[in-house]
Amino acid sequence: MVATNNLKTPQGQASFEISAYLQARQRLCDVALEGAIPIVYPEKIYEAMRYSLLAGGKRLRPILCLATCEMAGGTIEMAMPTACALEMIHTMSLIHDDLPAMDNDDYRRGQLTNHKVYGENIAILAGDGLLAHAFEFVATNTQNVPAERLVQVIAQLAKAVGAAGLVGGQVLDLDSEGKPDISLETLNFIHIHKTAALLEASVVSGGILAGVKDSDRQRLSRYAQNIGLAFQIIDDILDITATQEELGKTAGKDQKAQKATYPSLWGLEESRRQAQQLVEAAVAELTPFGEGSIPLAAIANFIISRTH
Amino acid sequence: MVATNNLKTPQGQASFEISAYLQARQRLCDVALEGAIPIVYPEKIYEAMRYSLLAGGKRLRPILCLATCEMAGGTIEMAMPTACALEMIHTMSLIHDDLPAMDNDDYRRGQLTNHKVYGENIAILAGDGLLAHAFEFVATNTQNVPAERLVQVIAQLAKAVGAAGLVGGQVLDLDSEGKPDISLETLNFIHIHKTAALLEASVVSGGILAGVKDSDRQRLSRYAQNIGLAFQIIDDILDITATQEELGKTAGKDQKAQKATYPSLWGLEESRRQAQQLVEAAVAELTPFGEGSIPLAAIANFIISRTH
Repeated sequence: MVATNNLKTPQGQASFEISAYLQARQRLCDVALEGAIPIVYPEKIYEAMRYSLLAGGKRLRPILCLATCEMAGGTIEMAMPTACALEMIHTMSLIHDDLPAMDNDDYRRGQLTNHKVYGENIAILAGDGLLAHAFEFVATNTQNVPAERLVQVIAQLAKAVGAAGLVGGQVLDLDSEGKPDISLETLNFIHIHKTAALLEASVVSGGILAGVKDSDRQRLSRYAQNIGLAFQIIDDILDITATQEELGKTAGKDQKAQKATYPSLWGLEESRRQAQQLVEAAVAELTPFGEGSIPLAAIANFIISRTH
Repeated sequence: MVATNNLKTPQGQASFEISAYLQARQRLCDVALEGAIPIVYPEKIYEAMRYSLLAGGKRLRPILCLATCEMAGGTIEMAMPTACALEMIHTMSLIHDDLPAMDNDDYRRGQLTNHKVYGENIAILAGDGLLAHAFEFVATNTQNVPAERLVQVIAQLAKAVGAAGLVGGQVLDLDSEGKPDISLETLNFIHIHKTAALLEASVVSGGILAGVKDSDRQRLSRYAQNIGLAFQIIDDILDITATQEELGKTAGKDQKAQKATYPSLWGLEESRRQAQQLVEAAVAELTPFGEGSIPLAAIANFIISRTH
């Protein structure tokens, strides 16, 4: 995976260190998220929201949003409130998915799940609070972006989390438990909605904030859909090959839940090959953006090289 | 309650039939809501969202939004997507509040609660889906309103449902169960957040859509806060005096849950007097709006005369 860690620019001059880039961006996002939800009365709900939001995720969605906005001529400052909102939405979906009535998970990002610490009722409300705060945060904190673009961003985020996105994907995911023989079509539906939709919103919203034209927005959508599915294939592979310590969450849970996964349909080797193909297709969509697309291309490659 | 049902206009000419007005507006809202969530694959989640959304509520929040927008010089068409979003948010809060981990209620609006029909997992997701759809619906369906106003409306709605609104109120409400001796201050906090905040967002968003000036927005806020508390006082009274059939939901549940209520603090008579005072204060805020404020004044009076 040399290409991932030391990408040549089109000029073949500078090198691009994806690990350092991701670390620096993650720190930027962590600082912004840290300030995004002050604790006021009643403290418990704000603490519960912060507990999961600040649990140290990879911040992949915020980073994609920032990177796309910059690539398209915008700034980090323009995109940061939306980037934070994306992480709030992602965190909300994790909190609700982990609930006993859903996947019933005890660990997430290396710590106890929200409901194990705060109880089911507060965990449900913390998710609701994060989802609402995401929209409020974009609407009230974004600077130097025309309101027309903000309305479009809000529509993108909302669609990605609703029944045509995360929620719809989770419905089918719940249905697929104990049915290891579901079709590739159903598996794709689940992950296009449960994983790719929010990654797509992350990338496309970054583009909208910077004012990309429609044809570029289409390219960004295809880039994101491809890395979204690749991301999920790798997730499925890691669920089999990685330890709980590496993942920071319960390992081997797909097999335990008798869930169909890409490796269960294709085997490990073919799954890796498909993920590689998807990443190549994703990177191809970035060609018109030139040298500015190096971070997004590197992120795509990083996705299939990650170990957790 | 003659004044409620047959209000004179300032000119003393035309009369205003609040019951007919509310019925007509409710029908308008029901038609709009009926078309707001088409059923697509996976059908179950859309059906669950529609089940609770179309269960025939009073549509008080949408009606307040439409009435305020009209009073401030806007149109029903400008406000209808926001009106629908308000009902989606309200319905989401009911679905989640009724969950076993929360108030554990079996009946709502005269029918089984969402989780009793679809299961807890789908009920949680149906709430999430409705909340997301509310924002998407405002952002994509509103016509002839400047985007700057839409962004402000979205911020209002989001704040009203988040930890500084419904969610925060529900947290304290859960805490107050089995504590019949909580202070008036805490009781007010609960209902300002759990009830008044969304009513305030309903009224203020109607004003924002029509482009009211800041001082009028303050008046609208105070009108709504006052009717919000009056509404809750009457709710508490009805929980004691009305039957389950009249309410369409479990009656006497406050007493059973040993919850402090306004009647438990003040007694029934003083509670009615306080509600009446709040409504008078609310109506006084409408003076500068002249004859156009008759519907909002009538709605305020209707709130304390309702029997369910």
